[in-house]
Amino acid sequence: MKLALSTTLQTTFDDALARTRQALAEQGFGILTEIDVKATMKTKLDADMENYIILGACNPPLAHRALGADRQIGVLLPCNVVVRTDTSTDGETVVIEAMNPQLMVDVSELSVLQDVADEATDRLHKAIDSLTDR
Amino acid sequence: MKLALSTTLQTTFDDALARTRQALAEQGFGILTEIDVKATMKTKLDADMENYIILGACNPPLAHRALGADRQIGVLLPCNVVVRTDTSTDGETVVIEAMNPQLMVDVSELSVLQDVADEATDRLHKAIDSLTDR
Repeated sequence: MKLALSTTLQTTFDDALARTRQALAEQGFGILTEIDVKATMKTKLDADMENYIILGACNPPLAHRALGADRQIGVLLPCNVVVRTDTSTDGETVVIEAMNPQLMVDVSELSVLQDVADEATDRLHKAIDSLTDR
Repeated sequence: MKLALSTTLQTTFDDALARTRQALAEQGFGILTEIDVKATMKTKLDADMENYIILGACNPPLAHRALGADRQIGVLLPCNVVVRTDTSTDGETVVIEAMNPQLMVDVSELSVLQDVADEATDRLHKAIDSLTDR
């Protein structure tokens, strides 16, 4: 199983982040949390790293259905979407990676979550596929 | 594999939340994010549910090691810790559940993450086991 649904963009980090927010919003995902991992690692450990943001994306109707199926599933919510500079290439390449919602089914072993995971996967795919068209 | 490391406390929700924060801090986990799921579901869907908070707990040295092993692992960071009222019992019972760090190894299939996951599991177990002694 893939850990993430991902793509890359040839653009600036800020533009990729803005596009990602917009694409997620259009698929019904609000951003509940945002972690600047680069800033956190600098502050806590004085360690340098590339731009790296973790967005906590939540589609409320899907989250509500998931919690209705399994109250414990909150340990995998919201759906994290990582936006980070690709250090393996020269130039401005940004990687966008969303947690694969199928993990919810895989680790919980609850088939009742399958429909929710399928819809979340479909919406995240649409959001990610739309990024290059903006 | 268990989805979560969990325990229950016979106390008020606010006391359980405060104890959880303290226990995580003592094991080196800072709280980077906090989602009030009950409030979010009320605001977004006008749906009622029990008290349900998702804390995003991060131990910076462990997170740094995990990211060093696999840049994609951010889709599973920070470690979520759910604090929620147990609706299956009368009286004041609160469930505390931390995402099982072994999931990182299981879903990424990267054995290089095993040491990090083992230390995270050990620290979360200590935090959870200490909750009843406060």
